[in-house]
Amino acid sequence: MHTHTAPVRRTQVERCCWPSSLRLLTVCALIAGCSAADTDITLDAKATLNHRIQSLDLLVFVFLLALTVLTIWLFKHHRVSWLHETGLAVIYGLIVGAIIRYAGTNTTLVHMQVEPQGIPTYNAKLPPDTLWFKYPVNQTNATKLPEGVKTYAYVFRGQVYDIEENEIDLKATFDPEVFFNIILPPIIFYAGYSLKKKYFFRNLGAILTFAIVGTTLSAFLIGGVMYGCVKLMPNYLSSSFTFLDTLYFGALISPTDPLTILAIFHDLHVDVNLYALVFGESVLNDAVAIVLSGAIQNYGEHYSNTGEFETTAFLRSLSDFFCIFFLSLLIGAVMGCFTALLTKFTRVRDFPLLESALFVLMSYSTFLLAEATELTGVVAVLFCGICQAHYTYNNLSEDSRQRTKQIFELLNFLAENFIFSYIGVSMFTFPKHHFDAGFIITAFICAALGRAVNVYPLSWLLNIKRKPKISSNFQHMLFFAGLRGAMSFALAIRNTVSDARQTMLTATSLIVIFTVIIQGGAANFFLNWLKIPVGVDDETEQLNNYQVHSSDGYLQDVEGGGGGRGKTRLSSGADSNLDTPLDGNAATATIAAGGRRRNSHEKAILARIWGNFDTKYMKPLLTHSRPTLLETLPVCCNPIARLLTTTQQLTQDGSEFRRVDSDSDICIDNDTGNGLSQDGLGVGRRNSINRMEILEHVQSPVSTRIRLLGFYGKKL
Amino acid sequence: MHTHTAPVRRTQVERCCWPSSLRLLTVCALIAGCSAADTDITLDAKATLNHRIQSLDLLVFVFLLALTVLTIWLFKHHRVSWLHETGLAVIYGLIVGAIIRYAGTNTTLVHMQVEPQGIPTYNAKLPPDTLWFKYPVNQTNATKLPEGVKTYAYVFRGQVYDIEENEIDLKATFDPEVFFNIILPPIIFYAGYSLKKKYFFRNLGAILTFAIVGTTLSAFLIGGVMYGCVKLMPNYLSSSFTFLDTLYFGALISPTDPLTILAIFHDLHVDVNLYALVFGESVLNDAVAIVLSGAIQNYGEHYSNTGEFETTAFLRSLSDFFCIFFLSLLIGAVMGCFTALLTKFTRVRDFPLLESALFVLMSYSTFLLAEATELTGVVAVLFCGICQAHYTYNNLSEDSRQRTKQIFELLNFLAENFIFSYIGVSMFTFPKHHFDAGFIITAFICAALGRAVNVYPLSWLLNIKRKPKISSNFQHMLFFAGLRGAMSFALAIRNTVSDARQTMLTATSLIVIFTVIIQGGAANFFLNWLKIPVGVDDETEQLNNYQVHSSDGYLQDVEGGGGGRGKTRLSSGADSNLDTPLDGNAATATIAAGGRRRNSHEKAILARIWGNFDTKYMKPLLTHSRPTLLETLPVCCNPIARLLTTTQQLTQDGSEFRRVDSDSDICIDNDTGNGLSQDGLGVGRRNSINRMEILEHVQSPVSTRIRLLGFYGKKL
Repeated sequence: MHTHTAPVRRTQVERCCWPSSLRLLTVCALIAGCSAADTDITLDAKATLNHRIQSLDLLVFVFLLALTVLTIWLFKHHRVSWLHETGLAVIYGLIVGAIIRYAGTNTTLVHMQVEPQGIPTYNAKLPPDTLWFKYPVNQTNATKLPEGVKTYAYVFRGQVYDIEENEIDLKATFDPEVFFNIILPPIIFYAGYSLKKKYFFRNLGAILTFAIVGTTLSAFLIGGVMYGCVKLMPNYLSSSFTFLDTLYFGALISPTDPLTILAIFHDLHVDVNLYALVFGESVLNDAVAIVLSGAIQNYGEHYSNTGEFETTAFLRSLSDFFCIFFLSLLIGAVMGCFTALLTKFTRVRDFPLLESALFVLMSYSTFLLAEATELTGVVAVLFCGICQAHYTYNNLSEDSRQRTKQIFELLNFLAENFIFSYIGVSMFTFPKHHFDAGFIITAFICAALGRAVNVYPLSWLLNIKRKPKISSNFQHMLFFAGLRGAMSFALAIRNTVSDARQTMLTATSLIVIFTVIIQGGAANFFLNWLKIPVGVDDETEQLNNYQVHSSDGYLQDVEGGGGGRGKTRLSSGADSNLDTPLDGNAATATIAAGGRRRNSHEKAILARIWGNFDTKYMKPLLTHSRPTLLETLPVCCNPIARLLTTTQQLTQDGSEFRRVDSDSDICIDNDTGNGLSQDGLGVGRRNSINRMEILEHVQSPVSTRIRLLGFYGKKL
Repeated sequence: MHTHTAPVRRTQVERCCWPSSLRLLTVCALIAGCSAADTDITLDAKATLNHRIQSLDLLVFVFLLALTVLTIWLFKHHRVSWLHETGLAVIYGLIVGAIIRYAGTNTTLVHMQVEPQGIPTYNAKLPPDTLWFKYPVNQTNATKLPEGVKTYAYVFRGQVYDIEENEIDLKATFDPEVFFNIILPPIIFYAGYSLKKKYFFRNLGAILTFAIVGTTLSAFLIGGVMYGCVKLMPNYLSSSFTFLDTLYFGALISPTDPLTILAIFHDLHVDVNLYALVFGESVLNDAVAIVLSGAIQNYGEHYSNTGEFETTAFLRSLSDFFCIFFLSLLIGAVMGCFTALLTKFTRVRDFPLLESALFVLMSYSTFLLAEATELTGVVAVLFCGICQAHYTYNNLSEDSRQRTKQIFELLNFLAENFIFSYIGVSMFTFPKHHFDAGFIITAFICAALGRAVNVYPLSWLLNIKRKPKISSNFQHMLFFAGLRGAMSFALAIRNTVSDARQTMLTATSLIVIFTVIIQGGAANFFLNWLKIPVGVDDETEQLNNYQVHSSDGYLQDVEGGGGGRGKTRLSSGADSNLDTPLDGNAATATIAAGGRRRNSHEKAILARIWGNFDTKYMKPLLTHSRPTLLETLPVCCNPIARLLTTTQQLTQDGSEFRRVDSDSDICIDNDTGNGLSQDGLGVGRRNSINRMEILEHVQSPVSTRIRLLGFYGKKL
């Protein structure tokens, strides 16, 4: 029985701003020195201090982001390509983290051991939610409470695992759940919302194979190998790891996050199929990994007591995995479709602000709904984003399309850079790191191994049936694109109660930092080395394959930016298609319809079945597209079909909305997409030039000019 | 000495979703019934439950907002004008609040009285930050902790005031600080960012008088009268109120929030000076009220022990008020100007996404900086917003201008509707309401009285010197526009520890609800009754006064929307100014320069001095405008002036950037402003018509068409 009172402990959540440190010291002095003052005032001062510390914490990150933004600009301005913004954010994060760690001031946390008043009768299975603690206050001002005793409430926080040293840090930099509830949702939603559906669907089979089979395979392989290696290590480490721990590590280190690579692909116009493979896989394997790690967690906590293999527990975890994944998918899809219906059958598009608000609210409610029903919000928003892009986007007014895209683009940018800064900062400030060189080296090797198992055998399998085969250079690039990022880190920092988990966090942080900076930086070089064709526009690729999509390619050219790399972009299709580029989508679709028979054999069967169903039933139901349900449903259903078909759908100009080939339906298409996307490199300048060139070509009546206005209005 | 274990208490933070209630019951059953299960699992289930409850809470509000959005659309669609969106949000909030209150399930909070372990030696002035509590766990699985005893940490929450009944509700719906840190900042920033500076500066004197003198006067009057009245009331009430309490009430009930009125003004094109008075005052008096109430709070807590009048304490509070107000103003202005410098001297505008991100980050860091230095963040972002609009906005790329405006517009819309929904919901769910009919009636009378004292005597004073006098009808309208809103509620709910404060919260909530619904609904009728001229465009007003601003008015016409009220908008200036409307600002400015001598005597002296300084030094320094510093600074400063002048500033076309009269410099001007603002009523349709009409007029060469494209690109 001993009373801990005010043992001085460091909490590393500190700041580096000098004026505030001064004020901080003042308040500390106030707290320490005012023996005659009222406890209320000191408490008040302390609450103020806490608020200010929180503000400062956030301020550090906001400044860090602002600094990153300015440096990215400098880099882009001077055409530096060996460091991407996420790498930069990590590096700045590391620097600031080190400053905070070694130059920051300390605050102390005081704790006291307590016991129940009177005879402890525990009739509940749970510790109480709050403790009430009577504290004698030697105050002179007796007007407020005559006894001089105040009762304070204390809220349940969590278990203290290691009483001697590594106690729970109650001022942790950020609650890890922040990532799952605030930072990741906009990133994942934007990934879904900006998915290039055209090539995504064409490569659906390969993407699903890599994402679902590959990630699972990689997780189990890494888990197994790591377990073997760990057992060969010194005792203190091997005793703290169970197989479930290493399996969890396998699941969290498997998802890839090739932001850097994709930015470079985008700038260099790398082959679209490669782009689709890398992007599609990285989006979906995030979803797989979060559900997989949840299932592994459940296996350990609920179904199995021993940590060894048990068949029933395994089956329950497996069903968990599939249930949660598909129910989350369902919720996301249903909410997306519901938004599409709302925007189709109301005229809310007359008021773009209301429409945008509705869009944002419905998307956010998808996340909340999934979380409230114990599903995975992040997976739900991913599929919600895909549905919003595929259906709702078509119903939105021009203003809302642009506004929603711009908002989510900005949110995505800020969230992404925040999380990478935080990875850097937390390397120094997060109190629960546990460095172990052996584990870290093994983890690096296993991460590479896991990626290799994901890419090579599956590519070989896919190549058996696949028409445009995945060449070995593409396979190497896929392997190389296996950077680890936000999702791995968020999963690793979520649970750091045991030594094993802390070791895993440290290894994960280092892998993320290393891959983002080194692999991200070397991507350009690697592309050259592997002789991956760059500057391959949609245009070229399509002209080679089908000789039809020229107008689409032309549009992408005009809009794609490409940083003034000096290539002659106004090429081939331009002159012959002088009229069609004005509404590129329709033109593409019409032309694509002609080429459809030719390329349909190249599409995956899955994509073809879905494409047919989508064009015949889903799109007519959820958007204003043609053919209407009146045409596609059997005659007996005509009354219902009429009810679900809007007047607009019946009366509109067929050429504008008819999209025969769902494959070529890029909802977030190039004409609005690229001009506003990640880099926006020199778009302003290029546009003004191209616009003039087009104007000099076009000698058409007023109506065309209006279409021109409408078209160019979109991207300005 | 007694042990409270599991006394069943209602906490009113409940939800209404049936499937979730079912699941909730399941988990509750699980918690209660699993005597053999592991405590860890139960704790885990409880944590999950808590997370789900939070998600559900948020979900309720998100659905409420979505419902509000849809209903607003219906109302606008059917041209219902007697209920504004904020009124609607309040009404829906009340309904949902009632449902939650009377149909919700209950969760129970368990608390336990504890005492220090061993001999309590309190050598600190403060209660400890955390309590460590050893809890015996009758678990069978002894692998984890052999003793069967776990230590849990409890975090300090706050004082328990009334042990018997009204104990601290640890599951309060939302932490009131959420309003000051998340909800209010975007609202206030947007108010500053969208301030119509033209008429704002012309009416600066009146606005400052109403906002600073008026609000203070009103606060003290209400405080005094309320104190007198309260002392006449039954003993239990009169004993709980001090003069400081009623003064605080005066300060929090004084700021006005005429959202509804302004929306109607905007739709009906009410006289611009009246609009500027109402808007300018409401923006500034929020800032005054928050600082004033902070000073009163400080007076009570820090400077005075008795609650009676003390000269030194009063003087210290007074200096607090001025210091905090002007330092916050300064931080906001400095950060705004710093952003302007950043955007002027870098070419970050080549990358609109980076530029927008920088803008958002700098604006948010203003708030954090002010909070971290113990100033008032809300006041800082207000002035930051004004500076961003006045300077930075001019440096931004077209894309960023639109993006930032759209983002903050949407944030403002969501935040506003959220807070009004919450006012409705909390009327039923917030546990600390204290109804007292006498106090509420007195509060209503005093609120009206305070508004009257604010408007009538000050108008009389102002009319002595003012050139366009404030007519008595305008004064009645000003009085009537005194709705109470978000700021009053946020200040009232911030502190609810005493009976007095709870009574004040209830009265404030009711005043807000009443004024928003009833006064807001009657505004249209009242406008007619007072014969306030509506349909007064800038155009008409300006044509009458100066006969020059026609092109500006014309632009506003084209863009203003006005909901197809059928007025002939393409009038007067249109044909004669076929060329100038294309860059309306420049045209306005140039013409205004001619009319300047004529109208300068009508401007307030303050505005004139500031305008000169601004045009000569601030704008050349912070934006790309002309004249440059080389022209305005004395010759000896030429080297510095050259350094601060960009090449763009020297080489650009003078007519585009020369803004002689800062008064006519509407940064957020009508051509981009109104088209995207609050209602967006029928803008899409109108634009397409007008665009065609203009196109039929314009028969000019390619270069003009490009300017056309640039101009229309802005608002699409």
